[in-house]
Amino acid sequence: MITIDFDNRGNMGLCDYIIDSIKNQVIDGTLKPESKMPSKRALAEHLGVSIITVQNAYGELISEGYLYSVEKKGFFVTDIKAVNIAKNDKADLYKDIYSEESRKLSNNSILTKEEENLKKEAPYISDLNSNSIGSDLFPFSQWAHIMRQVLNTSSSSLLQKQGVYGSYELRSAIARHLQGFRNMKVIPEQIVIGAGTEYLYSLVVQFLGRDKVYAVENPGYQKVASVISLNGAECVAVDIDEMGLSIENLCSTKANVVHVSPSHHFPTGVVMPIKRRNELLSWAYEKNDRYIIEDDYDSEFRFKGKPLETLQSLDNESKVIYINTFSKTLSPSFRISYMILPINMLQTFNSKLGFYSCPVSAFEQYALASFIDQGHYEKHLIRMKNYYRNLRNSLIYALENSDIKELLQINEEEAGLHFLLTIKTDKDGKELQDILRAKKINLLLLQDFYYTTTKGLSDNQNKKDSPCCFVVNYTAIQKNHIAEIVSLLTLAVL
Amino acid sequence: MITIDFDNRGNMGLCDYIIDSIKNQVIDGTLKPESKMPSKRALAEHLGVSIITVQNAYGELISEGYLYSVEKKGFFVTDIKAVNIAKNDKADLYKDIYSEESRKLSNNSILTKEEENLKKEAPYISDLNSNSIGSDLFPFSQWAHIMRQVLNTSSSSLLQKQGVYGSYELRSAIARHLQGFRNMKVIPEQIVIGAGTEYLYSLVVQFLGRDKVYAVENPGYQKVASVISLNGAECVAVDIDEMGLSIENLCSTKANVVHVSPSHHFPTGVVMPIKRRNELLSWAYEKNDRYIIEDDYDSEFRFKGKPLETLQSLDNESKVIYINTFSKTLSPSFRISYMILPINMLQTFNSKLGFYSCPVSAFEQYALASFIDQGHYEKHLIRMKNYYRNLRNSLIYALENSDIKELLQINEEEAGLHFLLTIKTDKDGKELQDILRAKKINLLLLQDFYYTTTKGLSDNQNKKDSPCCFVVNYTAIQKNHIAEIVSLLTLAVL
Repeated sequence: MITIDFDNRGNMGLCDYIIDSIKNQVIDGTLKPESKMPSKRALAEHLGVSIITVQNAYGELISEGYLYSVEKKGFFVTDIKAVNIAKNDKADLYKDIYSEESRKLSNNSILTKEEENLKKEAPYISDLNSNSIGSDLFPFSQWAHIMRQVLNTSSSSLLQKQGVYGSYELRSAIARHLQGFRNMKVIPEQIVIGAGTEYLYSLVVQFLGRDKVYAVENPGYQKVASVISLNGAECVAVDIDEMGLSIENLCSTKANVVHVSPSHHFPTGVVMPIKRRNELLSWAYEKNDRYIIEDDYDSEFRFKGKPLETLQSLDNESKVIYINTFSKTLSPSFRISYMILPINMLQTFNSKLGFYSCPVSAFEQYALASFIDQGHYEKHLIRMKNYYRNLRNSLIYALENSDIKELLQINEEEAGLHFLLTIKTDKDGKELQDILRAKKINLLLLQDFYYTTTKGLSDNQNKKDSPCCFVVNYTAIQKNHIAEIVSLLTLAVL
Repeated sequence: MITIDFDNRGNMGLCDYIIDSIKNQVIDGTLKPESKMPSKRALAEHLGVSIITVQNAYGELISEGYLYSVEKKGFFVTDIKAVNIAKNDKADLYKDIYSEESRKLSNNSILTKEEENLKKEAPYISDLNSNSIGSDLFPFSQWAHIMRQVLNTSSSSLLQKQGVYGSYELRSAIARHLQGFRNMKVIPEQIVIGAGTEYLYSLVVQFLGRDKVYAVENPGYQKVASVISLNGAECVAVDIDEMGLSIENLCSTKANVVHVSPSHHFPTGVVMPIKRRNELLSWAYEKNDRYIIEDDYDSEFRFKGKPLETLQSLDNESKVIYINTFSKTLSPSFRISYMILPINMLQTFNSKLGFYSCPVSAFEQYALASFIDQGHYEKHLIRMKNYYRNLRNSLIYALENSDIKELLQINEEEAGLHFLLTIKTDKDGKELQDILRAKKINLLLLQDFYYTTTKGLSDNQNKKDSPCCFVVNYTAIQKNHIAEIVSLLTLAVL
């Protein structure tokens, strides 16, 4: 029978503690894949807790994909490392449901011309540098249903121009979601709805000022620096070490504002530990004009354990502007993002940018609010998480069983939607990349994410990284292409 | 029998020429309101043209609201100046259709909280400074139908991130619409989709550079200057005279770029004549770094004659960036705008801003493309034009028959969605405004639209305008409030 040590429970709720303990035992293999779990009654008696508590814990573990139930047989441990999570493959299940609906009208498509263009523009069969998702993964019929509900109300609110903050309904729904999903305590009044994160970066520069110097992570998501520079502010690149952004390096610059992704750095995957988070906050507390932009872009897809507390939650001096987006979780074509301002900033924000209108359609704001409030968004997250876990496991399994397995090193694969793949080879990374591209596979090198504009490649990069380290962003590939991707990579390396 | 002089036809198509001739005779009163038109056959014989030609001409004139047909009786001239265009009131007709659908679910509204907020924020019963439209005027059920069609295709194109230009489908639909509706020859490749005009102003500053000096119209739409300033570029205000932006005044500034609304200046309503348009273009042609931003924000609502050629069409040296929006014609909460770049600018635009994503949801882009292509958009424009003409005529009629009619002067009421109301009184405009606001009626003074930041109120304003001139933006008022508005105004003035 499963053992749970309640001595370490601390202040944690009973149910949460049971969930976490079982989750960890599934992850570290104490609970064997496909093994049968005790019945709810048996576990309750064994642990000395109520059946309701166990029932809630099992329910949560099923929805998160760690357990699955078979009718009249009981509960089983998911093989989370398996290539085929057949019995629990909710993603595939939904896939069929949505495809059926969708195929009905596919001949009647209005998108032919655009599709032709896309074919021209995206020549890769497998693009490991894309955030696109397959059309079978978006809950089209659910969304259509909710959109109809919203439009049927025909309310005059739908036709009112929205102030810079966006609709109060959506902001409330986001605040509730963040409380439940991320344990963040924010009020709707702090939330500003934007049309994609690029729009919000630009708004932040207009708000904090282009007289400030903005630090960005090196290597990093280069669009941030592009947007900030185009908005007329100076950017400096700050090195990343094994704990994330280097405070030492940051202090050596003139930066007043820093953009970071502590929950999962792109592209290295580093998760900033609590110590470094506190150091970063201390840096900001030191001077009045210092601020942190926290980009939490894929915190929803942490596969192991709970994400660490956000800087936004830790901050108690109104220094952190938190940014997140629905583009990662719903679809990159879905242009709704949001930022959370410290309460003390609201008055200044209002007087400076209050004249703007929210750039997001009111229809979609109300639809998304409904989608979240009716519970569809959390279900969608779980579904996507299972789908991505399955895809990631399949890809890693294929890599680890390939003919070049001895040459491969995979890093940081437990959080977010990408991992690093280092290949111990004498071949040049660029050369491998070209060979793969000729075979219609796109894979970016880690070195592509270093800033080179200021002073050539940074020292940091030359010291530490292998010249043949790839950033594997696997979300847009198809499972049935994995074998081909790995065999082409093998051919290129050998 | 109606006479049409074919000698002046020039290169114009036969059908178009007949349409224009009849339209002009309706407008100038040659064809009396409510008079019966000849039958199609009779007119065809009389003019020596085919019945098909007359049929097409009548069809177009009916759809534009100049004629109406009564079953088994024939065709009649619309009383376009009448307070109640009873027989041809398409707006009211559609109103009932949409309301019926919409009321079904109104009790089930998800918007209660937001509506409460809006009540708090918008305390006016009649706000003559608002662009909101009533919920009975938006084609909700049509839109819901098209949105469902789009979502049902479930095409992967819907989930692709859109490049900075936006969807090719929508850009093609806009290009076709502009060709038909505005006689503008543009290719889809020149069009950039944006989330509202504010977004596009900001993009233009990033593109042309914040080292340029931007001229804005004085008086004018002050948001333009706010956005440009917040984007870090210098703004100068240039006076308006009876032909629009003063070129003399413009030349006396350091401006490289000028923002103008030649088709209908806000708020004076001045339409820039072709002579001034050519002078403005010549100004831009003089130096390499000079550009014109043409804001065509309500050209769709010209009630008399055709709008003049756009600067964009007249420009032959790649100097004009044209901006327009769907917020005015569909709903202010509908955040889709677009700009047209000269072909020669595309390469630079691409290399500078090509990394951006389009901030508009792909779903709404495809839905709008469909809405335009299926002809719903043009029908909606005609419906709204009839609705606004009716509303405007009712308001003007009520003003012209009020007890203060001798004191009133109404200017520029034939184009766009606002007019100027000057009151010959010793009372102070601000005082009148306060009295009306206390009665929940909001009316802005023309002087509110002058820039005061640089050097106090401009000389221009003090010289010419009455201290008691109001900008009447009537789109958001309700017809059944007109009597009350006019009687409260009368009370305030007397």
